[in-house]
Amino acid sequence: MFGVTVRDHMMVAHSFRGEVFGPAQQLHGATFVVDATFRGEALDADGILVDIGRATEVLKAVVGELSYRNLDDDPAFAGTNTTTEVLARHVADRLAEQVAAGAMGAAEHVNGIVVTLHESHVAWASYERSL
Amino acid sequence: MFGVTVRDHMMVAHSFRGEVFGPAQQLHGATFVVDATFRGEALDADGILVDIGRATEVLKAVVGELSYRNLDDDPAFAGTNTTTEVLARHVADRLAEQVAAGAMGAAEHVNGIVVTLHESHVAWASYERSL
Amino acid sequence: MFGVTVRDHMMVAHSFRGEVFGPAQQLHGATFVVDATFRGEALDADGILVDIGRATEVLKAVVGELSYRNLDDDPAFAGTNTTTEVLARHVADRLAEQVAAGAMGAAEHVNGIVVTLHESHVAWASYERSL
Amino acid sequence: MFGVTVRDHMMVAHSFRGEVFGPAQQLHGATFVVDATFRGEALDADGILVDIGRATEVLKAVVGELSYRNLDDDPAFAGTNTTTEVLARHVADRLAEQVAAGAMGAAEHVNGIVVTLHESHVAWASYERSL
Amino acid sequence: MFGVTVRDHMMVAHSFRGEVFGPAQQLHGATFVVDATFRGEALDADGILVDIGRATEVLKAVVGELSYRNLDDDPAFAGTNTTTEVLARHVADRLAEQVAAGAMGAAEHVNGIVVTLHESHVAWASYERSL
Amino acid sequence: MFGVTVRDHMMVAHSFRGEVFGPAQQLHGATFVVDATFRGEALDADGILVDIGRATEVLKAVVGELSYRNLDDDPAFAGTNTTTEVLARHVADRLAEQVAAGAMGAAEHVNGIVVTLHESHVAWASYERSL
Repeated sequence: MFGVTVRDHMMVAHSFRGEVFGPAQQLHGATFVVDATFRGEALDADGILVDIGRATEVLKAVVGELSYRNLDDDPAFAGTNTTTEVLARHVADRLAEQVAAGAMGAAEHVNGIVVTLHESHVAWASYERSL
Repeated sequence: MFGVTVRDHMMVAHSFRGEVFGPAQQLHGATFVVDATFRGEALDADGILVDIGRATEVLKAVVGELSYRNLDDDPAFAGTNTTTEVLARHVADRLAEQVAAGAMGAAEHVNGIVVTLHESHVAWASYERSL
Repeated sequence: MFGVTVRDHMMVAHSFRGEVFGPAQQLHGATFVVDATFRGEALDADGILVDIGRATEVLKAVVGELSYRNLDDDPAFAGTNTTTEVLARHVADRLAEQVAAGAMGAAEHVNGIVVTLHESHVAWASYERSL
Repeated sequence: MFGVTVRDHMMVAHSFRGEVFGPAQQLHGATFVVDATFRGEALDADGILVDIGRATEVLKAVVGELSYRNLDDDPAFAGTNTTTEVLARHVADRLAEQVAAGAMGAAEHVNGIVVTLHESHVAWASYERSL
Repeated sequence: MFGVTVRDHMMVAHSFRGEVFGPAQQLHGATFVVDATFRGEALDADGILVDIGRATEVLKAVVGELSYRNLDDDPAFAGTNTTTEVLARHVADRLAEQVAAGAMGAAEHVNGIVVTLHESHVAWASYERSL
Repeated sequence: MFGVTVRDHMMVAHSFRGEVFGPAQQLHGATFVVDATFRGEALDADGILVDIGRATEVLKAVVGELSYRNLDDDPAFAGTNTTTEVLARHVADRLAEQVAAGAMGAAEHVNGIVVTLHESHVAWASYERSL
């Protein structure tokens, strides 16, 4: 099993609904350092699972749609807390769409994606899905 | 599959029995940077797998029981080398007890725990178990 | 010259005024991983420059005043962009007040403070001042 | 499931064939920070999966065979791009040979290896295999 | 005193002349993770020392001139070993030219630059100069 | 001004005398990740300030004298708490002796040393001295 990971980041504002969140119910924000891992069982004829350059560009586009925004105003997340877990799944699902749409080239052997969002040096969350 | 990780650390003294350990047979010590990952297939109604705040508190309590101590004197480890592997399992088992006891709230979807102990910038060990 | 550093973090929302900021003029947010360094020429009788435990508590209190908030609503920053540089200076100044007020004990040899705020894995800013 | 990881690094020159690689078709180089993880279900009588000291030595020897060289001149890689994925597999296979040859002692419970090669702070690749 | 740092990286091949270099006399390579710090005593009216976005672009351009190349073939380094120290100075000098040429905007308060090149997780070199 | 840094680590047991230390008055331990920086204004004819290979060996020897031991039993520290600050100064002084003794070759331009000891991911101390 191979895995290839690229890293980028996004800076967002948001607030959470639910007593469990304590002070995080107030409008606050986060830098999410985002690691996107593409997984697969084999390499292509060039000796790669995915092109790291294209993977970097696709991840940059996906996190760019969220960055420098207040996620409380984003209809895509209406009625949903944009927790680290939810955002990890969102980024993974958007990357899966991009792979399916050919944005990363053939990427014929990619069969899974893992996205990890680091919200600080002491907390992070990830979401793993097949393709 | 979701995963949520929180990080803390502990500082302990200990020694090992067995020629394989070389100079580590002498009384020495370590800082273990501890990463505790909670895993599960779904999120609760708040959009979280576990409350990061409560997970942080529970991990702090578990590593606090070990920290600032000489583990050679701890009856819980009598007859056992407190290697990084053994301590990773110990912390994971204690966290599993805490989850079962409700210390992290409902945490209804948590079905696995991974604990990684970093003993230096060039060596670490982990233990993974189901719940 | 000795230096002792402790690390914590804060999560804030804010927006910037000025064309130079591009998309960061929108309401967004950041996690700032905060490193506070205390400097001095000598150690006290216990062999320390500052008590790392107390330094950790004081830093936690200072960043706690800013965390989980929208800094655009904070009168302390009215008319000022809360850039990484400005926040680094703010934290350093607040820490200096705490040292002067005895919050860190005698700390008799501390004569300088450096605060570094990491806004992502690829950008950070610092402010250094004497006491 | 236990895992034990040791880290080392290697510095190599190489070039890639294939338009997908863009400027990396030119002779260039990389530092690969190499993480080698040994996995297994149980610990031995000493309380370890593998001896971290021996694992460190074996990894050092394996990466030492590649380091400070131009991999374009290495017959072992003739006709193959020495991408991060290919090198991760190469290191994992060499480590598996070493374990089988007894270089790490009994290591009776080791049943899998994961090798991760970090080519920069924003990109890495891994290869996982059973033993 | 303020400092603002941005990080990028470059991947190069090179070899060294001189017995002191041992195996590094052979053609090999390195990833250099490059931290560029801009220093100054005051902030501008926007509350910044430099625009982090522009600093990132300027650093990317400067390291881009060196990346994906064999530095042994670069006339700029004829007769000079491209050690980590030499490359740190080279990048700092090129950044200083860019600041002087206005590539980073007014940057009126910038009076010093520090460049650190990380050649691995266990070795790095820096060069500090005034402007 | 140039700086060259190499990193190693040591694992020790110790205890502290003084109420300020709270639970750290008990026998405990630490991994110290040690960064040794050599500073100087110029490079030698080879284009280096110090040989990174030799610096690595010298640092390894110096931290090796302390590692895998209980520092409470070391006569060199009798009557002194082996705090992170004290150990940083000790390592810096030992490295200065080694440079003076020629252990790192000519190293003619080295005029300062900074040693940083990381006791965890959230606390570190440093000592800086001239040569």
